[in-house]
Amino acid sequence: MRKDRADKILAGLDADEILICDPESIRYLTGKLFHPGERFLGLLLGKDKEPVLFLNALFEAGDIGVRVHKFTDTDDVAEMLKKEINPDHVLAVDKIMQARFLLPLMERGAAKGFVNESLAVDKTRAVKDDEEIALMRKSSEINDLAMAEFTKLIHEGVTEEEVAAQTLAIYQSFGAEAFSFTPIVAFGDNAADPHHMPDDTVLQDGDIVLFDVGCKYHGYCSDMTRTFFWKKAPDAEAERVYNLVRTANEEAEKICRPGARLCDIDKKARDIITEGGYGEDFTHRLGHFIGTEDHEYGDVSSGFDWECVPGNIFSIEPGIYHRGIAGVRIEDLVLITEDGCEVLNHYPKDIQILK
Amino acid sequence: MRKDRADKILAGLDADEILICDPESIRYLTGKLFHPGERFLGLLLGKDKEPVLFLNALFEAGDIGVRVHKFTDTDDVAEMLKKEINPDHVLAVDKIMQARFLLPLMERGAAKGFVNESLAVDKTRAVKDDEEIALMRKSSEINDLAMAEFTKLIHEGVTEEEVAAQTLAIYQSFGAEAFSFTPIVAFGDNAADPHHMPDDTVLQDGDIVLFDVGCKYHGYCSDMTRTFFWKKAPDAEAERVYNLVRTANEEAEKICRPGARLCDIDKKARDIITEGGYGEDFTHRLGHFIGTEDHEYGDVSSGFDWECVPGNIFSIEPGIYHRGIAGVRIEDLVLITEDGCEVLNHYPKDIQILK
Repeated sequence: MRKDRADKILAGLDADEILICDPESIRYLTGKLFHPGERFLGLLLGKDKEPVLFLNALFEAGDIGVRVHKFTDTDDVAEMLKKEINPDHVLAVDKIMQARFLLPLMERGAAKGFVNESLAVDKTRAVKDDEEIALMRKSSEINDLAMAEFTKLIHEGVTEEEVAAQTLAIYQSFGAEAFSFTPIVAFGDNAADPHHMPDDTVLQDGDIVLFDVGCKYHGYCSDMTRTFFWKKAPDAEAERVYNLVRTANEEAEKICRPGARLCDIDKKARDIITEGGYGEDFTHRLGHFIGTEDHEYGDVSSGFDWECVPGNIFSIEPGIYHRGIAGVRIEDLVLITEDGCEVLNHYPKDIQILK
Repeated sequence: MRKDRADKILAGLDADEILICDPESIRYLTGKLFHPGERFLGLLLGKDKEPVLFLNALFEAGDIGVRVHKFTDTDDVAEMLKKEINPDHVLAVDKIMQARFLLPLMERGAAKGFVNESLAVDKTRAVKDDEEIALMRKSSEINDLAMAEFTKLIHEGVTEEEVAAQTLAIYQSFGAEAFSFTPIVAFGDNAADPHHMPDDTVLQDGDIVLFDVGCKYHGYCSDMTRTFFWKKAPDAEAERVYNLVRTANEEAEKICRPGARLCDIDKKARDIITEGGYGEDFTHRLGHFIGTEDHEYGDVSSGFDWECVPGNIFSIEPGIYHRGIAGVRIEDLVLITEDGCEVLNHYPKDIQILK
């Protein structure tokens, strides 16, 4: 049990106790990742209360330094939880707690009220400590190396799926254990769909080739996007689109520092793209926080006025998606430092024509 | 929109409308799988009501034959939902609806009450139609072929991780698109942990080698376990354990037919293992339902008294986990037919010594 991390969460909590269900948050606190699937998993933390982990008997807790309450598939989970929850207090839950577990607790009146206080956990997880920063740096270093290898997979007649299928082995050859998310490999107009999944599209001369990829290193994620051109240089308008996205990415990164508001960083990139005439084709937030999950709480978007603090790590990923002209996204991870930021990705952003 | 499937769900619903959030259930109804990540995704179905899909603007719905209500990252999801939900009715939700979306609906009084009626969806999905059965059969056929290839990856000095890393390419060579779950490869005593994740354990002479593996074919899952021995035949007690598990598996499969209760199928296998003296080492349910997800609703366990009906597909996977003696699990998928069952896996179960 990482008492320092638990104390930070409790200090930020309005309620007196919180039932944390997110396996990644439980790993953050215990050092161990459980995969409960459809089974219940929960860690009850309270002020002046001994923490307790509720764990199905199928899983082995190991030596995690917290009391473990085991149960089996035929036990009544709500009854079990009710015995440990203080009925006179409001119970905080985390955002991912599922209706199948939450509604029975409510029906039994297990607490005086129920509130979503994920923010107390999320805000703690959003500030990485030195141990986490070292792993995030290494994960992105692997991503840079892997991107160079991925470009070598591009050849006449290849499909997106065939390229994507070879990426995991490359990550593993550099010491990563897994993807941080299913890789996006998009050719041609497919790059104009920001969430395109690799399919049997065959590479055509003049295609855009977009890689949005990341790996996990000791559980910590990387996430980077680069957009290339196959065989032919982009036409004038596609080149303008590329440079708009690149400028938006670089100018936004320049203002990342302690005290900068996330919404202002988003605005910096969005204004550049809007002034270039493509504002309507930049359809998503500028970035997201990242750690042991590819998407952690915290957006670089107009709706988020948090001020950056040292230890924040998030993506800066402007894009323009316009079928028939171009689909371009350029993404790095940035770490907020004491006096500015460190861009964790170093793969070049110049226009690169693959051959 | 698969109206036949939606009508079955509505017929089994106590409430007047249901908000379905499970992406796999939404795929079951619309034919399209969305990966919403932390964003809201929901399909509102009601008696005498036009269905509506709530989809973030980041995703393209395509031609799915249902009204799509788009929203952006800065929209208020609860306000949007409230406008479409009938405030005078009880709203059914599904089991995976998350606290971050459910609690705000409750706070705003969007419905007269909230109940988890996942069962109406789950019971419909638990009866596979002919189209689904054909895909499930093919997925398990690939799993049988792949298991034969996996045994060839076992050699002196190899680690579990090295073996596991090669399995995806083998599945894909047979036409599968992905794993149905992270493969379990366990050597020696690691096989006595039913949820062991492949690590850097090096194969030793005399080790048990357990594969619990499955793939996805057109979205449909397979799942099979076989337990092998490396170089040396098992000692007498390990052989007895193996044969107990095999007998439990085969005898349970023999009684799978329409009208059989799931708890009785579990009992059949459990009694055999208990009479053999290892009841306490069989620590999980006998099986689980499966379809587009590896674990779907429906357990073959003492707590489940459903009667089997044609079209049900579930696993039969007894195991004995006893460190120092043996960790053995043998698993097949079975399909309930009109007059019995069809075992979807055909990989042999005789004791096999790999060399």
